[in-house]
Amino acid sequence: MSTAKKQEFVTIIKRIMRKISDDVIKQNQMPILDLPKIGYDNTVWSDEKRMLTTGDKKIEVSPDSVKKIPTFAQYLVMANAVKKLIDEDMESTIRGMYYATLSNVGDGKNRQKFWTGQEDSDNAIKAVELLTGIPREEFSVTSKPKGMISGPIKLRVGGDIIDCNLGSRATSQLIPTNMGDVQIDDVKADFVMVVEKDTVLNNIRKSGFIQKYNAILLTGSGEPDRATRMMVKILNEQWKKPVVVFADADPWGLGIALRYKIGSESLSYDSERLVTPNAQVLGMMFSDIYQYNIPEVARLTASDEDINRANDMKKKPWMQNKQWQKELNLFLNKKEKCELDAFFKHGFKYLSETYLPQKLRMVGLI
Amino acid sequence: MSTAKKQEFVTIIKRIMRKISDDVIKQNQMPILDLPKIGYDNTVWSDEKRMLTTGDKKIEVSPDSVKKIPTFAQYLVMANAVKKLIDEDMESTIRGMYYATLSNVGDGKNRQKFWTGQEDSDNAIKAVELLTGIPREEFSVTSKPKGMISGPIKLRVGGDIIDCNLGSRATSQLIPTNMGDVQIDDVKADFVMVVEKDTVLNNIRKSGFIQKYNAILLTGSGEPDRATRMMVKILNEQWKKPVVVFADADPWGLGIALRYKIGSESLSYDSERLVTPNAQVLGMMFSDIYQYNIPEVARLTASDEDINRANDMKKKPWMQNKQWQKELNLFLNKKEKCELDAFFKHGFKYLSETYLPQKLRMVGLI
Repeated sequence: MSTAKKQEFVTIIKRIMRKISDDVIKQNQMPILDLPKIGYDNTVWSDEKRMLTTGDKKIEVSPDSVKKIPTFAQYLVMANAVKKLIDEDMESTIRGMYYATLSNVGDGKNRQKFWTGQEDSDNAIKAVELLTGIPREEFSVTSKPKGMISGPIKLRVGGDIIDCNLGSRATSQLIPTNMGDVQIDDVKADFVMVVEKDTVLNNIRKSGFIQKYNAILLTGSGEPDRATRMMVKILNEQWKKPVVVFADADPWGLGIALRYKIGSESLSYDSERLVTPNAQVLGMMFSDIYQYNIPEVARLTASDEDINRANDMKKKPWMQNKQWQKELNLFLNKKEKCELDAFFKHGFKYLSETYLPQKLRMVGLI
Repeated sequence: MSTAKKQEFVTIIKRIMRKISDDVIKQNQMPILDLPKIGYDNTVWSDEKRMLTTGDKKIEVSPDSVKKIPTFAQYLVMANAVKKLIDEDMESTIRGMYYATLSNVGDGKNRQKFWTGQEDSDNAIKAVELLTGIPREEFSVTSKPKGMISGPIKLRVGGDIIDCNLGSRATSQLIPTNMGDVQIDDVKADFVMVVEKDTVLNNIRKSGFIQKYNAILLTGSGEPDRATRMMVKILNEQWKKPVVVFADADPWGLGIALRYKIGSESLSYDSERLVTPNAQVLGMMFSDIYQYNIPEVARLTASDEDINRANDMKKKPWMQNKQWQKELNLFLNKKEKCELDAFFKHGFKYLSETYLPQKLRMVGLI
């Protein structure tokens, strides 16, 4: 974390503390902290920004908060632990933060654990995040990195330059979850291709796709973490690289593709840093199943959950264009889905040498 | 895959085919292929090799194999698909191989799927592996890489040199699952420290441990894949670097630590390439819970499964020394376990600046 960022964090924490002591001492009232409410019931679509954003519902952290809202003391203990983590310039997972703040309170018969479980401390971390406006990755509460990147791009990680083109037929670079540790140093690629799954990326990588099309290949390995989404956004908006996304032809895969393009309900409060409205979701379309003759034996039957999801998607404001409505209707009619891996039925190179180039040509990228 | 390896694979496949046609045409008998039986009931401990090895039980692949043994036709179809994958110099997952070989057989009322599910094709891949003696990663049927490495070591991956010391406070290099793609180019480290979990590695990495002790940090992210085990073995036996292993203080963690040192039942047929008998399992010992005053609130209660596992371990030939017996007895007596992360209770740097150095000093490594 940079010194300026550290200072910002500490300043915010102190300001909140001051407000609390004012409440208690000067106003003689119980302190209350307002947090933006998170989740589907406080997520709104912005036509102007073309992304999911947060509404104005609030929740209150108070000395006697219940359920998922951390109590006041829990919030304070966690804020303090985070400050310590920052001061020591160390890194921890959410589980590590749980251990760091574990204790028993009270004594004798009233003795009990400060956290009833890790879920409590996770919620307290979320509260610190929301109150300071700084995502937890930036105060070094990190997760296992899921994002991977290969191609003509150089990253500056912890002061060193890592060239993601080295060995890029056989390996990828992890995208550190703490984007504070990473800067993009140089990008020579013409465009960025995001694929849903790392296993599909490995296949494409091996084919020489990166070299042939001067592309960056990137994956979030399923649900993308924040660093991965942020990386995509920076490549598109600061480095002006077109971004295309490919996922499985099922409502789940389409949902993941849309995380990059419009955001997600659980992170809508952070959309402005994470979402790439200009990303193009190019495939796999439901119509591709038939267009590319995926044999019946390689198609999968849609589950009830898939159908519900698709019906739900059809009504969303961001799906109100002819192409998506047609695709979703086709899916609801045929009730069939398909993984990108199914192209292997046509040969191990079909995906990277036939399907993807055809799609990229359609939008003039190659 | 190198040209020599490719040739080897094709030669073995052809030899097997010839044997089959001999059986059918010359001997006029149903062809049968013998496979070594895999699993706990055909795993034997070798005192001499100090590792788990395979016994001499066999299973037979025949035209009418049942259950987990692939039928003859299934084996042939898969061997053919693998040959195609090699010829095209491509890479696939086991799921990709399933798709590549999917089909319907028979017609009309008898029409049915060639595989009843992916499990069938997975078993056929295993059969190809066992019959050729070449692990699937080496014919480019790969998995998501789980192994990560940081520190003063250079890898040659797909022809390029990757320096694992770059950015090593903030990121790690993935260990490609296909070790055929990787060579170790240079090792400047004094020793190799393996930790069970990647999240713990991130914490240690961040502290500057690598620079301070000139160490390689390596993790298999839980259950290590073959490439990770192989990397550890090569570093120990070819590069003569001492290897120490740290895992959580529970029977599960101890089991993972022992994968590196003695092998595993499911891969005992491949132990000679995977196992590092000279690796030292240094922690976390059950006695460390008390030695290092892990407070009660940060300890976990052992489950029945843990207890059974520990009782089972106590009888194993490789656990017959005073120290392990004492540790397991302590665990069975106290019924408490502990994660390495629990050291965070003593401060975010305690693990890397106090616990680990003390352990390493005990064996004279630092």
